[in-house]
Amino acid sequence: MKGLNFKIIASFLGLTSMMNGFFMLLSEPFSWYYHETASTGILSAGLLTISVGFLLWFFNRNAPKDIHKRDGYLIVTLGWLMLTLTGSLPYLMTGTITSFPDAIFETISGYSTTGASILTDIESVPKGVLFWRSATHWIGGMGIIVLTVAILPLLGIGGMQLFVAEAPGPSTDKLHPRITQTAKRLWLIYFSFTFIEFLLLKIAGMTWFDAINHAMATLSTGGFSTKNASVAYWNDNPFVQYIIIGFMFVAGANFVLSYFALKGKVSKIFNDDEFKYYFLLTVFVTISITVLIVWFQDPALQTTIHHPMPYGALESGFRHAAFQVVSVLTTTGFVSADFTMWNYLATALMFSLFFIGGSAGSTSGGVKVVRHVIMIKNSMLELKKQLHPKAIISVRYNGSRVSRVIIFNILSFFVIYMLIFILSTVVLTFLGLDFLSAFSASASCLGNVGPALGSLSPVNNFAHLTDGAKLFCSFLMLIGRLELFTVLIVLTPYFWKSN
Amino acid sequence: MKGLNFKIIASFLGLTSMMNGFFMLLSEPFSWYYHETASTGILSAGLLTISVGFLLWFFNRNAPKDIHKRDGYLIVTLGWLMLTLTGSLPYLMTGTITSFPDAIFETISGYSTTGASILTDIESVPKGVLFWRSATHWIGGMGIIVLTVAILPLLGIGGMQLFVAEAPGPSTDKLHPRITQTAKRLWLIYFSFTFIEFLLLKIAGMTWFDAINHAMATLSTGGFSTKNASVAYWNDNPFVQYIIIGFMFVAGANFVLSYFALKGKVSKIFNDDEFKYYFLLTVFVTISITVLIVWFQDPALQTTIHHPMPYGALESGFRHAAFQVVSVLTTTGFVSADFTMWNYLATALMFSLFFIGGSAGSTSGGVKVVRHVIMIKNSMLELKKQLHPKAIISVRYNGSRVSRVIIFNILSFFVIYMLIFILSTVVLTFLGLDFLSAFSASASCLGNVGPALGSLSPVNNFAHLTDGAKLFCSFLMLIGRLELFTVLIVLTPYFWKSN
Ligand SMILES: [K+]
Ligand SMILES: [K+]
Repeated sequence: MKGLNFKIIASFLGLTSMMNGFFMLLSEPFSWYYHETASTGILSAGLLTISVGFLLWFFNRNAPKDIHKRDGYLIVTLGWLMLTLTGSLPYLMTGTITSFPDAIFETISGYSTTGASILTDIESVPKGVLFWRSATHWIGGMGIIVLTVAILPLLGIGGMQLFVAEAPGPSTDKLHPRITQTAKRLWLIYFSFTFIEFLLLKIAGMTWFDAINHAMATLSTGGFSTKNASVAYWNDNPFVQYIIIGFMFVAGANFVLSYFALKGKVSKIFNDDEFKYYFLLTVFVTISITVLIVWFQDPALQTTIHHPMPYGALESGFRHAAFQVVSVLTTTGFVSADFTMWNYLATALMFSLFFIGGSAGSTSGGVKVVRHVIMIKNSMLELKKQLHPKAIISVRYNGSRVSRVIIFNILSFFVIYMLIFILSTVVLTFLGLDFLSAFSASASCLGNVGPALGSLSPVNNFAHLTDGAKLFCSFLMLIGRLELFTVLIVLTPYFWKSN
Repeated sequence: MKGLNFKIIASFLGLTSMMNGFFMLLSEPFSWYYHETASTGILSAGLLTISVGFLLWFFNRNAPKDIHKRDGYLIVTLGWLMLTLTGSLPYLMTGTITSFPDAIFETISGYSTTGASILTDIESVPKGVLFWRSATHWIGGMGIIVLTVAILPLLGIGGMQLFVAEAPGPSTDKLHPRITQTAKRLWLIYFSFTFIEFLLLKIAGMTWFDAINHAMATLSTGGFSTKNASVAYWNDNPFVQYIIIGFMFVAGANFVLSYFALKGKVSKIFNDDEFKYYFLLTVFVTISITVLIVWFQDPALQTTIHHPMPYGALESGFRHAAFQVVSVLTTTGFVSADFTMWNYLATALMFSLFFIGGSAGSTSGGVKVVRHVIMIKNSMLELKKQLHPKAIISVRYNGSRVSRVIIFNILSFFVIYMLIFILSTVVLTFLGLDFLSAFSASASCLGNVGPALGSLSPVNNFAHLTDGAKLFCSFLMLIGRLELFTVLIVLTPYFWKSN
């Protein structure tokens, strides 16, 4: 095994920082426009980040260009850490957040598109910092697209090679420093959807500032809002909420399918196994929860969120059911109602969605629908195999045979996911959380959902956690976002042995 | 595929019923001794069961002797249902339990060695019926031994072929109606341990009736007690509790190891990978919880159980920690203290044990230590493989290479286990449970533990459940006990297609 190419890793970290600093400077005009004193802090953070990035890149720009797998893992893991360290500067240098663990938590929650927050009064945060906060989501979403489409399949992590088999653009079996054509096309779709949602939200009645922030937080399935009440702030404006429901659903679907749809190949969408189940699951759970909250809401459970019903109880029930289901299933985490206050069945249904997640090739987190589809098909097959041990039968996905290696990868992924979930519950109670909050926070952070249950329910936030719990949750958000293996592998002794 | 051999299945069900009726008649002397009116009901139940069994056997005694795999599944599944239907008669015919769902729940809880109860005042139940209740545990334990050692490995379920590779006695690759030599040897050990524990408990101060019942409920890892307070009734008698801790630990270890130990090959025990982890886990969690409850118990959480401290707080803390840890890890479910009242970390630690379970080849339920060992070893290996894709490395267990097929079986088992756990939580909230009780009951019933959390904590019982929830829990206990596949396979369309 060759040694690590530290120079090229450093040059990548430099480029990443420069890009990050550029987005900080984009936040600057918002601060100027609102005459905020925070503008100095944001400008300093941006210039500092760009400078550090430039120096890192400049002194390593002549690095040998050969990148091996191990360099790839380090680039991804260290890249996210570099984003986090520099990305926390706008919070710290404007005084918006003064504690270091708090800043780390909020920053990783942003980039990982989790959207859990330690801020208790979001509306008092300077607009420039709020824009930066939404920008971390949007950058994170870009990072996930390149990771999922260009890097994870090459590394063969958790069966990801399967789901992007049809991805457009050049396919290569070498890890290549150039961001592939595929990623660029998907970024264009990501950008266009964000822009269209922004326009629609503005037309529906949001301010342009709220519209741009919510559009960025939707397409990245992030979930940071500019309002303390999240999207419940617009409970008197159903159009705003239906627009967000629609774009959350799109953000939770495979971007490769959106690419085909835009090319006119709409049939590709409905022939896609994962999309079919994603769609049916959304419809089924939405209808179930509509019925539950319209006719069976537990009167003992009172919500603190105001719910005007401009079009009656049925529309309101359907809208809030659809909003929460799509928000949690796509792991966006926007809130229009407190689902923990409906009834126990609704809570259990919503919590089970924490473990599903959106589609592969989207910006959503969690286990992903396709992995569940394959796991369930494989389970049925295992039962069949008990009866016909010699029959040659295999799991089929989108019309093709799925290899045993990929199924093995997927099963291993889920097993590790659940073991980390159970172990993290124990760790979080050790770090001071009560049991219900601990195990739901563990599932929520690992799946990059955002809200949890108990003291971390949709109307609460993560401010009351101990510093240790905040840092551990940050770690969970990071490994969840990077599909576990990318980070875990760097933490094994094997990784460092040959250096 | 050949048709099912219904005649031989019926003759097995007949033999099972006769054996069951024989144990009912064994309960009869206890009722006579205490001059109970229940004696008529028990006698009638016993005679009825024996008669039904005799008729079933008599008219099918000349059945063709060839048994195929599919017959095997049906014999196991229907055998347990037959036990349940006849086994509920002593409750119903003595009037101890009057509702049919209640009787089914208590009976399946007995045979599955779960030990969850719908009885609210155990001490008012006639002694003959109490003995019968403990006998269902003991019969269930016998069933599990034959299932694990003689049947599951042949059916290749969940990697069970691996753990009994060293089992003594003739090994055959054909499903054979004769109960193997192996099972007989292990039954002898099971019986001897029960008898020794009975003697020790009597010496330590239990009445002979309590001693025999607790011995049967210990070796089967069942957990039914004759006292409302369970083993907390003997909180002033540490010897009784240490004896039970010791035998619970033995009951949760592989009986094949006990066989070798009795043959003088003690080194086999400490060379066994599963035993090592089982032992270390017990010690580690016991010490952690001792520290927690002696020095960090949350004063806000008050327990209703009386805790005299005859040898001081440290001994008492250690004893209750060890008791609860061994009781939950081995899925026995006896109670000397309410672990949900210690603190949140202790609750989380104890709850995570729900998913581990004892050793394969024991009477304990749950996922089993060995599956976790293999899953964790495989996860480490998957990480290693990412770095060395071409290296030929494989999971090793007890010094040998574990085949990919077995690992695949184990991963599939765990995935199905967790999916059923999550789905059952939703179903149980639908059937009226609150969220915390639902998801803990789901884990407890599936793992055959007994106590759960919330309204089903160790000081509560399952009486308040709706009939639907009781029947669903019964189903969970049954499929958990039969290692999922045995029952699930009978529920697939594949199973019935060729008939
Ligand atoms: K999110
Ligand atoms: K039990």
